[in-house]
Amino acid sequence: MSDSPSLHMLREHEITFRVRYSETDAQARVYHAHYITYFEVGRTELCRASGLDYKRMEQEGLFFVVTEVTCRYRGSAGYDDVLRLVTRVVKTKGARITHEYALFRGDDLLAEGQSTIALVNRAGTVQRLPDWLLLDE
Amino acid sequence: MSDSPSLHMLREHEITFRVRYSETDAQARVYHAHYITYFEVGRTELCRASGLDYKRMEQEGLFFVVTEVTCRYRGSAGYDDVLRLVTRVVKTKGARITHEYALFRGDDLLAEGQSTIALVNRAGTVQRLPDWLLLDE
Amino acid sequence: MSDSPSLHMLREHEITFRVRYSETDAQARVYHAHYITYFEVGRTELCRASGLDYKRMEQEGLFFVVTEVTCRYRGSAGYDDVLRLVTRVVKTKGARITHEYALFRGDDLLAEGQSTIALVNRAGTVQRLPDWLLLDE
Amino acid sequence: MSDSPSLHMLREHEITFRVRYSETDAQARVYHAHYITYFEVGRTELCRASGLDYKRMEQEGLFFVVTEVTCRYRGSAGYDDVLRLVTRVVKTKGARITHEYALFRGDDLLAEGQSTIALVNRAGTVQRLPDWLLLDE
Repeated sequence: MSDSPSLHMLREHEITFRVRYSETDAQARVYHAHYITYFEVGRTELCRASGLDYKRMEQEGLFFVVTEVTCRYRGSAGYDDVLRLVTRVVKTKGARITHEYALFRGDDLLAEGQSTIALVNRAGTVQRLPDWLLLDE
Repeated sequence: MSDSPSLHMLREHEITFRVRYSETDAQARVYHAHYITYFEVGRTELCRASGLDYKRMEQEGLFFVVTEVTCRYRGSAGYDDVLRLVTRVVKTKGARITHEYALFRGDDLLAEGQSTIALVNRAGTVQRLPDWLLLDE
Repeated sequence: MSDSPSLHMLREHEITFRVRYSETDAQARVYHAHYITYFEVGRTELCRASGLDYKRMEQEGLFFVVTEVTCRYRGSAGYDDVLRLVTRVVKTKGARITHEYALFRGDDLLAEGQSTIALVNRAGTVQRLPDWLLLDE
Repeated sequence: MSDSPSLHMLREHEITFRVRYSETDAQARVYHAHYITYFEVGRTELCRASGLDYKRMEQEGLFFVVTEVTCRYRGSAGYDDVLRLVTRVVKTKGARITHEYALFRGDDLLAEGQSTIALVNRAGTVQRLPDWLLLDE
């Protein structure tokens, strides 16, 4: 993952997707752990929109590992709901990127979250983020 | 979920379980969202060990909904690892119970977490916890 | 789910979607059970494209339950792959619909499958399919 | 995975386990694809009971890949049900092992299934099963 003039990390990205039946639980809502999976999809798509191919990054021996995740549930989503997830980069430092998430159905905020990921190599050693991944202060 | 002299919420409970292949991801570790599922299993078993049959509680129209969850990853688990999860009740107030979790493989701490659940009825209205679910202060 | 002149079950429908990290396993492929979930998404979208709102159908007390599913794996999918799933209705009889599935990455056939679903009411009693869901012979 | 006099593949093995909340869906039953995951757990435990450490086998560069799976649903399982899964080896030939599964709650048969797995090396090349994995005819 070399520095590249063609790459520029977006600060915010939005995706929409539909809840699958497999993601619901016996309360007829999305099972709470799946929100954490949605957050990762949001993160992946923010990377892609920024020009970063995460799959290729792994093939080259660099990995993001999640070091912390939080979700606060404000409402609930159901089967077949169309959800909108806003992912934002809020902090970059050393090897770490912190994202914030807001999940909506229409204008209703269903959940908010935060995660921190760290860049490591195949041996698990923490790697400094390349400059283009750092937020301008 | 009536008050009952035969029920007494345990403050701490421990389970052990084995990682399934389906819980791993392409990094050959447990996918991070599954830790949140493990936490729920720990919570359920703490309830059961305290004499609370959560399945029956739902049939009677009372539900726990998760209002917040956090996980901090300290290490990683792999396929077939035998993990030990310690679940503790750390706070009870009004309709809410806060649990803390510590996940180990042998003596290695792999993750720590916290969740808050709230008691609601079928209509989603928040319900005060019965006395026996409250921690003695 | 009354008979309706505006509804006409399509015989075939195609969707494309991207593999999520959460769907991979330690072999760095999509875990085999997730293909079954993909099949359901294909089925749901074929229904939707035919004018059938399955979510509403459940709210009105009719449900499809899966009675049999088969998957034959011809290749493997990896993280971030864009997959194309072709779903076809191959048989309708009484309460049952049989679908066939073919999952591709580009032109490569990764898996083929088949499922049978049955229409039941809230009590679990089998219900005859409405005429518009029946294939013309 | 060398031939070893201390290893002998069992023809049948039984496990019991409890349904997790995360495995249920909005019909308040176990989501149908999870039965396929249960089957894998049954297969793994049959291997373990036979003296085969599948985790170590993968570390040594040999893998089982699923080539076909079928499940016929006879009933439904719910949250917290204690299920009993009987796994049997029914055929071994060349690189392939075929297992049959029967899933019970008490004496009720909930599902029956079958899978075929093939032994491959890291490059994906099919490998002949070692003699001790073959059924005596």
